[in-house]
Amino acid sequence: MNQVITVGREFGSGGRELGRRLADKLGIAYYDREIVAEIAKRTSLSEEYIQHVTESRPAPLFPITIGKSFRTEMGMLQMQQTIYQEQSKILREMTERSACVIVGRCADYILRDHNPYRIFVYADLESRIARCIERSAETEKLTSAEAKKQIAEIDRARAKYYAFYTDQKWGDKANYDICINTTHISVKDWAAHLTKMLE
Amino acid sequence: MNQVITVGREFGSGGRELGRRLADKLGIAYYDREIVAEIAKRTSLSEEYIQHVTESRPAPLFPITIGKSFRTEMGMLQMQQTIYQEQSKILREMTERSACVIVGRCADYILRDHNPYRIFVYADLESRIARCIERSAETEKLTSAEAKKQIAEIDRARAKYYAFYTDQKWGDKANYDICINTTHISVKDWAAHLTKMLE
Repeated sequence: MNQVITVGREFGSGGRELGRRLADKLGIAYYDREIVAEIAKRTSLSEEYIQHVTESRPAPLFPITIGKSFRTEMGMLQMQQTIYQEQSKILREMTERSACVIVGRCADYILRDHNPYRIFVYADLESRIARCIERSAETEKLTSAEAKKQIAEIDRARAKYYAFYTDQKWGDKANYDICINTTHISVKDWAAHLTKMLE
Repeated sequence: MNQVITVGREFGSGGRELGRRLADKLGIAYYDREIVAEIAKRTSLSEEYIQHVTESRPAPLFPITIGKSFRTEMGMLQMQQTIYQEQSKILREMTERSACVIVGRCADYILRDHNPYRIFVYADLESRIARCIERSAETEKLTSAEAKKQIAEIDRARAKYYAFYTDQKWGDKANYDICINTTHISVKDWAAHLTKMLE
């Protein structure tokens, strides 16, 4: 079986960066937006809409206008679950194709039969706020309060999405093989450490 | 500053074994019983008593007869806190002396100014029960139910002890730099991985 590394992460902890660095160093595929693009191709829904629902708990209230070709006969809830099913299929196909790193998307759960190496990345709130501010666009720098609000909202959505589809608690260390704290050790250093471990 | 590695662990997860292996591989000191022996020397209390109170929440009801030279003027609670203070002092002295691995004893918290590398070791209940049974003496093999009870009791005591002295939640990943799951990856393999990371 191809090596599969899944990365769950608190918003602002640098999990996505870690995933990318790890894939680079290990010379394996990194799947992120490609998954959204592939779902869009298969379902005729917009990438924006898919992006939204693949990390939120299914809710029937999202404005339907964002769907490119919303099929009225299909309830929103059902559509979101269809997207989840499609995503699950794509993830499995991708792991069949080659070794890879996948960030988010309940991949640790969806691919559990594939025995993935399950990483969870976290950090204290202060350093996550600092990271969010640092990576916000120069022209619209976030305030500390805005960053804090964004972190809380996104993590709440991730937790609900994960709980809905997996019946597990998002971020609970029991669901991962290793949990790493990026507060005092940089993402770059973690990537180097984990590469030594995984290669 | 000398490298200091602290290891918190769920009972039955192999944390102590990991600590010992890590110290061996890194060629640094491993402190465990030495700490108890040193406290005993300095306080004239029995090692058995010290062993008991250094991972239990302070409670005034422990049978006093176990203390080698129980000083009646000193309440049990105060004595337990004295032991904690003594232990803290010894831990700081040990880290001044050389690089080391320390298992348990709130060392991650006590030595926080020393910037330790804080590991927490955990595993699912099933594999912890299996480990407990495996390491119980041949003549008095634990049953699965007994092992489960032992795990619950010891972890409850550790959690209370840790919370009492640190005001933090024992096992909460926020308090550690890395949390490792020994359910699917062996302690031996983790020791090899972490050594590459830390040397």
